[in-house]
Amino acid sequence: MTSEFGPLKASIEQALAERVNQSSTIAPSLLDAMRYALLGGGKRLRPLFTLVTAESLGVDVRLAMPAACAIEMVHSYSLVHDDLPAMDNDDLRHGKPSTHKAFGEWTAILAGDALLTLAFETLCDLEGVTPDVQIACVKLLASGSGWQGMVGGQTYDMHLASAGETIASIDELKALHAAKTGVLIRTSVELGARVAGASAEESKELGQFADGIGLGFQIMDDVLDVTASTEILGKPAGSDVRENKQTFVTFLGVEGAKREALRVLGAAESNLDRVLRNSSRLKALGRTAVIREF
Amino acid sequence: MTSEFGPLKASIEQALAERVNQSSTIAPSLLDAMRYALLGGGKRLRPLFTLVTAESLGVDVRLAMPAACAIEMVHSYSLVHDDLPAMDNDDLRHGKPSTHKAFGEWTAILAGDALLTLAFETLCDLEGVTPDVQIACVKLLASGSGWQGMVGGQTYDMHLASAGETIASIDELKALHAAKTGVLIRTSVELGARVAGASAEESKELGQFADGIGLGFQIMDDVLDVTASTEILGKPAGSDVRENKQTFVTFLGVEGAKREALRVLGAAESNLDRVLRNSSRLKALGRTAVIREF
Repeated sequence: MTSEFGPLKASIEQALAERVNQSSTIAPSLLDAMRYALLGGGKRLRPLFTLVTAESLGVDVRLAMPAACAIEMVHSYSLVHDDLPAMDNDDLRHGKPSTHKAFGEWTAILAGDALLTLAFETLCDLEGVTPDVQIACVKLLASGSGWQGMVGGQTYDMHLASAGETIASIDELKALHAAKTGVLIRTSVELGARVAGASAEESKELGQFADGIGLGFQIMDDVLDVTASTEILGKPAGSDVRENKQTFVTFLGVEGAKREALRVLGAAESNLDRVLRNSSRLKALGRTAVIREF
Repeated sequence: MTSEFGPLKASIEQALAERVNQSSTIAPSLLDAMRYALLGGGKRLRPLFTLVTAESLGVDVRLAMPAACAIEMVHSYSLVHDDLPAMDNDDLRHGKPSTHKAFGEWTAILAGDALLTLAFETLCDLEGVTPDVQIACVKLLASGSGWQGMVGGQTYDMHLASAGETIASIDELKALHAAKTGVLIRTSVELGARVAGASAEESKELGQFADGIGLGFQIMDDVLDVTASTEILGKPAGSDVRENKQTFVTFLGVEGAKREALRVLGAAESNLDRVLRNSSRLKALGRTAVIREF
């Protein structure tokens, strides 16, 4: 993360920590695992998008913080469940043992469930917005992360892997990632827009920006899997090749994929210029998200 | 289920079916598993409590239907995850293969996640109530089913089982069940009360009624595990004894446990008389829930 967003990221870390710094007499290990999963690192891209979107529409970022925390909790729970032996069976996350490796499988399942539930509870703490905006945010988060959104995309991905099917075209690959990771990034932006009272038109343009960022992010993820080290990634590098996965690099090559990521990023930025008077912060965040270390 | 609540149960079945009769191009197996888990039987006790509570407070049951569906989705997801190999490892549910047995483990994990998410999306469709009541319902459902509620209780139960610890007293057993199953039954009643615009005092009395029903229900569950057949239970009978679990029967014996269930039921009913002019339907439902087949 570039230093420009360092202070905002620090405020997200603090807000997340406050949400899980609870104590439980009957289930202390559950809270330990929730803290481990939620506070164990990560770029905090999704909550940053929520906050910077709200800020770009003229709203105090503190107002959007519960929405920012909620989206990160959803992202965090999805990683915990994705890493499970029955799913991707990943032992490493953010450079540390994944939650089920550190706490055992059943605790990880329950900690994921509890984080997802906590996301919706946290959304109820939005202040300074009307209750109908709050409900709109609950609906956005639920549809973006449920069967028609993120969980649907994960199912699609798991189905391909377990059936040994390969993706036939770059359009199919884009559809997969739009559901698996793209929807949640769009939801991050839409939550920030909703909290800031954006119009339908503004929300649509911002959503298209987010879709571009989500796609660019995924293309670069595929590039980094080939070019970066395990240390930088915080997860095993080269896993796509080992698992014989069809990625943007398979279709476009490393250099072609980098060019496509930059093209997608540029197109996304042009959406922003149509809707925001001051788009520089959101553009900078989009660039940080897509380009990263390469 | 006695015939008195048959029509209401049928309307719940229909409403639940409508919520999952969706189609997905990318994840059809996910929706298949969600339907299997949600529509595969069950007493529908929790949604019945929501609807009958609303009805007893003078509100059209249709108004409370989204809340009723939401609580059943949470109950249903929790069974799917509870049955997983890493948790209780149960092969049978409602007399049929449990969801992971029928669809595989990763589909079951994701179907559970999607049902939990759908519960919150469904709550957003409450009509005829103000948005702040809707948000109050989201908060109720989240706190009742999260780390401080149901998931906390499941963690406690799993901890005891995996650590080989036994419950030392009947009070400890009551605390376990209050969290594991009691909170969700109380939440069912509280959701119905909220939708019907109940006062804080009414909600408190109704909550105490629900706590009694939840306890009585669990005591009878322990009795039935000893006295009923696998066919009637829809799950393997005698599993508590085989697993050397401390239950209400261990502490009180079969007859003592039956007596205690009836005592708790009577105490719960007296709460109702303090708050409802017409408590007969809710009493009847409470009796149906606790007494069942014995």
